[in-house]
Amino acid sequence: MQKKYVIIGGVAGGATTAARLRRIDENAEIIMLEKGEHISYANCGLPYYIGGVIKDRDNLLVQTPESFGGRFNIDVRIFSEVTDIDADSQAITIRDHKTGKEYTENYDKLVLSPGAQPVKPPIQGIDSKNIFTLRNVDDTDRIKAFVDDEKPKSAVVVGAGFIGLEMAENLHQRGINVTVVEAAPQVMNMMDPEMAAILHQHFKEQEVGLYLQDAVKAFRPNGDGLSLMLSSGEILNADFVVLSIGVKPDSHLAQKAGLELGNRGGIVVDEFLQTSKENIYAVGDAIEFPHPLTGESSLAFLAGPANKQGRILADNLVYGHKRKYQGSIGTAIAKVFEMTAATTGLSDKALAQAGVPHQSTIVNGGSHAGYYPGSTNMVLKITFNPEDGKLLGGQVVGYDGVDKRVDMLAAIIKANGDIYDLQEIEHAYAPPFSSAKDPVNQAGYNAENIIKGLFRPLSPYKFHEWNHSDSCLLDVRTPDEHSLNAIEGSINIEVDKLREHLDEIPRDKNLYIFCGVGLRGYVATRILKQHGFEKVYNLSGGLKVYQTAIA
Amino acid sequence: MQKKYVIIGGVAGGATTAARLRRIDENAEIIMLEKGEHISYANCGLPYYIGGVIKDRDNLLVQTPESFGGRFNIDVRIFSEVTDIDADSQAITIRDHKTGKEYTENYDKLVLSPGAQPVKPPIQGIDSKNIFTLRNVDDTDRIKAFVDDEKPKSAVVVGAGFIGLEMAENLHQRGINVTVVEAAPQVMNMMDPEMAAILHQHFKEQEVGLYLQDAVKAFRPNGDGLSLMLSSGEILNADFVVLSIGVKPDSHLAQKAGLELGNRGGIVVDEFLQTSKENIYAVGDAIEFPHPLTGESSLAFLAGPANKQGRILADNLVYGHKRKYQGSIGTAIAKVFEMTAATTGLSDKALAQAGVPHQSTIVNGGSHAGYYPGSTNMVLKITFNPEDGKLLGGQVVGYDGVDKRVDMLAAIIKANGDIYDLQEIEHAYAPPFSSAKDPVNQAGYNAENIIKGLFRPLSPYKFHEWNHSDSCLLDVRTPDEHSLNAIEGSINIEVDKLREHLDEIPRDKNLYIFCGVGLRGYVATRILKQHGFEKVYNLSGGLKVYQTAIA
Ligand SMILES: Cc1cc2nc3c(=O)[nH]c(=O)nc-3n(C[C@H](O)[C@H](O)[C@H](O)COP(=O)(O)OP(=O)(O)OC[C@H]3O[C@@H](n4cnc5c(N)ncnc54)[C@H](O)[C@@H]3O)c2cc1C
Ligand SMILES: Cc1cc2nc3c(=O)[nH]c(=O)nc-3n(C[C@H](O)[C@H](O)[C@H](O)COP(=O)(O)OP(=O)(O)OC[C@H]3O[C@@H](n4cnc5c(N)ncnc54)[C@H](O)[C@@H]3O)c2cc1C
Ligand SMILES: CC(C)(COP(=O)(O)OP(=O)(O)OC[C@H]1O[C@@H](n2cnc3c(N)ncnc32)[C@H](O)[C@@H]1OP(=O)(O)O)[C@@H](O)C(=O)NCCC(=O)NCCS
Ligand SMILES: CC(C)(COP(=O)(O)OP(=O)(O)OC[C@H]1O[C@@H](n2cnc3c(N)ncnc32)[C@H](O)[C@@H]1OP(=O)(O)O)[C@@H](O)C(=O)NCCC(=O)NCCS
Repeated sequence: MQKKYVIIGGVAGGATTAARLRRIDENAEIIMLEKGEHISYANCGLPYYIGGVIKDRDNLLVQTPESFGGRFNIDVRIFSEVTDIDADSQAITIRDHKTGKEYTENYDKLVLSPGAQPVKPPIQGIDSKNIFTLRNVDDTDRIKAFVDDEKPKSAVVVGAGFIGLEMAENLHQRGINVTVVEAAPQVMNMMDPEMAAILHQHFKEQEVGLYLQDAVKAFRPNGDGLSLMLSSGEILNADFVVLSIGVKPDSHLAQKAGLELGNRGGIVVDEFLQTSKENIYAVGDAIEFPHPLTGESSLAFLAGPANKQGRILADNLVYGHKRKYQGSIGTAIAKVFEMTAATTGLSDKALAQAGVPHQSTIVNGGSHAGYYPGSTNMVLKITFNPEDGKLLGGQVVGYDGVDKRVDMLAAIIKANGDIYDLQEIEHAYAPPFSSAKDPVNQAGYNAENIIKGLFRPLSPYKFHEWNHSDSCLLDVRTPDEHSLNAIEGSINIEVDKLREHLDEIPRDKNLYIFCGVGLRGYVATRILKQHGFEKVYNLSGGLKVYQTAIA
Repeated sequence: MQKKYVIIGGVAGGATTAARLRRIDENAEIIMLEKGEHISYANCGLPYYIGGVIKDRDNLLVQTPESFGGRFNIDVRIFSEVTDIDADSQAITIRDHKTGKEYTENYDKLVLSPGAQPVKPPIQGIDSKNIFTLRNVDDTDRIKAFVDDEKPKSAVVVGAGFIGLEMAENLHQRGINVTVVEAAPQVMNMMDPEMAAILHQHFKEQEVGLYLQDAVKAFRPNGDGLSLMLSSGEILNADFVVLSIGVKPDSHLAQKAGLELGNRGGIVVDEFLQTSKENIYAVGDAIEFPHPLTGESSLAFLAGPANKQGRILADNLVYGHKRKYQGSIGTAIAKVFEMTAATTGLSDKALAQAGVPHQSTIVNGGSHAGYYPGSTNMVLKITFNPEDGKLLGGQVVGYDGVDKRVDMLAAIIKANGDIYDLQEIEHAYAPPFSSAKDPVNQAGYNAENIIKGLFRPLSPYKFHEWNHSDSCLLDVRTPDEHSLNAIEGSINIEVDKLREHLDEIPRDKNLYIFCGVGLRGYVATRILKQHGFEKVYNLSGGLKVYQTAIA
């Protein structure tokens, strides 16, 4: 019997579901409804088109309604918004925005992939002109036209998540004076503060203004532009504003239809991606699903998961409920000016909030062998269960090869692996690509050393709270390095001479050991511990991370 | 009780064992014996130093005997060759090459990490001057001095494995006219022929001579240079020759000591890295160990495994036999001029030889999203068990991002994963780094489609054997593409119009479908199969791979 599939939303989740459906069910009737003009567009490319990095607008449109309809024999209807779902009679109401007419369509199986909507909090003046949000091609055209035509000189980006930072970079790239305002004390809230701090420093290097822990209280029109009143009292003037405070699941249609929503506002689906009503399914940004690491209901606004869900769902629709969706571990990445920041799994912060026991460590590594030209430094942090070593999260900030490391970490987390699996990864090594021990291997070694009690790491923030009366700061770098940037009150004995100077080190105090990146500190720790020193701690990530974190 | 550890060989495996030993056993006596002048050098960097890419020779020396001895309190003895092992009395004989004296040293635990030696087959004239091999710093100095001082114009590199290709690139980089001679029908014998063929084409682009399936029969001095007589009858003249036909485990000392050798000439070790004699252990290039995928005894000449083994062994020496070595899956990578070639696990060829059931598929992918500038194409081949989908091998050739993909594949193979794990990898996606579906995800999808019978892939070589009488070649590209480079005898119906032209396609013949890279061919296959066409095959990797493979 010919099935009739109706899909709401024609981009990442929707179009992927439709394409796979057709490939495995040539005979079905498939209708794809999209309220906007465009389907299958590259949302993720939009900031780069505004920035002029992607030059040709057509490149953003992966498929047109015609090409997609043609290849997959799908009834693609644009400007067609679904305004109502009657689950009992298995029918939906569609408004055709071109004709203004409404009509109904019934379905055997209904798929929702409506995506998300930018958050627009009720800040005074938020509807002023020249305040933009960015979600789709129309938004993009609006911002691009404004930048091209009005040649603005200054912009404020409100919100420093992935999209905010991409917008900041792309506007900066166009020669616009950009300032970023973020209510949290750091950019990239999914990362831990010492990792985000590296990006803060990079903002300075790029001479891009950054206001942290400061929220916009009001927008005021000001000539052709705007003034932003910040909660700190600061006033910023700009020709325009891009709001990227975050997005929320577009679940209003689902709600109206009586589908269960989760406590984060997403559409609740089971592991087969079925909503609370039979024959209605949902994928993409709009769904809420248990996080694989905590079991807590969570959202993921990511294209990869949306695409993956689409394929899984199509299979379940055609072959029956067989394939389980496993949830997203939130792997995400952004180019931030010259740097790259990426994360997978959960941060210390998020795990603390979820009450999950965790431990973490920071290693510094080269993008490839240091002796081969062009190697750049990256900071890699992993978080793991302190008992069994299960890998819970990874964060990487650097220049080159950040994507590779986060992908290896993601592969291990996704496979439910642990820090010993990190040690065992047999990565490809030749000097232009890595080192004999890749930074992910080093992170695995490090974590084991912590679990086995070979050393105790100290976070840069804990280190910063040191107290002269009960602790001693021991700098194990060379005297030359020490003299360049000594921490006041620290004593200096280089690691290679440590064994000859043991009697100069107090035995009754906490020993806070540090070096450049943490490695020599670790070697020193091992020497001291085996010579009977007990309260020995090693600064995680070394001075390099510390000095950025407390800057 | 203080333990006495003696280590033979002071580079990758040896020095790493020594360093970890010291970190976990401060009190042990550790002696590291190295017959050459240098320890801890970056073997893998040697070709690049000769090429002038790495400028400073000191950069190759990760540690000196002094620095290493100082940091780790290790008794490092260079120019000290171990000439004999008496396992019963736990003593070794050492020849001091500086003094010429021999002496003995006893041990509690002995570690062998003697490495490997370049193969030098008994070819006529192989000991002529200006024929070099490359294994250590001395060899490097010799070649570098020759190139610097004699300013040779031409070189032949014999052997096209990883090191041979790196040498070819580096000599080419110095402006030397390089020719590569390889006895096998392809470069990079660990890869399958259609993957190696991409490199063959790249050789042409670089105007570097390549003689395949041709062996050197004799070397003849010729003026200041050499003539090489090839088995094809061809004669090549060159100012010098670099022999890189391969290496063999340096196991002669082990053999002399009565340690068990494997059938590949390596030192047999158990999973704790102990040799056949108690208290004698071995790591690195010299060992022979079951391959994790086949169980067959195998060798691995790789720095990563040598380093990893060193750490595992140190732990077993200090903490008892607790940590098992899991074997190497042979992940390797090389920069080959502008391209990169990498492999992990086993090729079709190797699996066929080992009698392991396997199936493979080729996908073409972008290094990152095609709509973001700078994306380059890569060809990715995976090999898997056709029943349960267990991942057995991955090969990647391309420009950018090859290392990342092979590392993801390696992580999955190492974790005993399958092609469904490839689908599930939640990689980091933003346009500069990947696509919403990464090529590794696509490979996983593809493999599933093959296992589930959604399409049958055809290797380029099988495709090439097509026979007009019983098969029909169906080009599903656009007419424009078809007219540019049609395969003679093929019919052209573009995929997007296929449904309207089904009656033009013969039902009684094998249908060999092809497109540019395989994707449209797959979509076409799905349409045809569901319209009752039965003998439908899709050209794996499309014309792109085919045309290179049969060139
Ligand atoms: C600027 C930007 C940059 C991004 N960058 C990245 C990135 O680098 N990496 C990454 O992983 N993710 C990125 N994302 C997120 C990614 O695009 C989304 O996760 C993904 O598109 C979600 O897919 P979806 O199908 O749920 O929603 P969408 O792709 O947004 O598609 C939903 C569609 O449904 C339509 N729709 C909604 N309601 C109705 C209705 N009632 N009737 C008919 N149609 C309806 C909408 O018009 C919309 O076109 C980015 C997003 C944006 C906006
Ligand atoms: C040119 C070149 C490029 C390479 N590129 C790569 C690459 O890109 N990626 C990769 O993974 N691998 C690469 N390798 C391989 C890698 O270097 C080896 O796998 C690794 O060094 C093996 O470590 P090992 O400790 O077993 O041997 P080695 O590192 O070779 O050390 C063995 C040492 O033992 C000493 N020795 C031997 N016998 C005795 C004795 N009887 N007494 C005292 N000392 C002794 C030798 O002098 C030698 O210094 C490359 C190798 C070479 C030569
Ligand atoms: C364009 C779009 C509809 C394509 O969906 P799709 O056809 O499922 O995806 P792809 O074009 O990547 O093709 C994937 C299919 O081709 C197959 N394939 C890929 N490479 C192949 C090859 N070389 N040979 C054979 N098959 C191949 C895969 O197995 C997969 O098929 P399957 O799902 O049936 O197993 C959808 O991805 C889309 O709308 N994208 C834009 C929107 C978006 O994702 N935005 C967010 C990111 S910016
Ligand atoms: C130089 C050499 C002796 C170093 O050995 P090593 O000390 O084991 O290796 P590394 O310097 O990478 O240090 C690794 C150790 O530092 C620790 N570490 C790394 N980064 C750290 C950080 N930021 N903080 C704390 N500890 C860190 C690791 O956990 C590991 O310790 P462990 O093994 O006790 O767990 C050895 O690698 C060598 O000889 N290399 C050159 C030869 C060679 O490998 N050639 C082939 C490749 S070209």
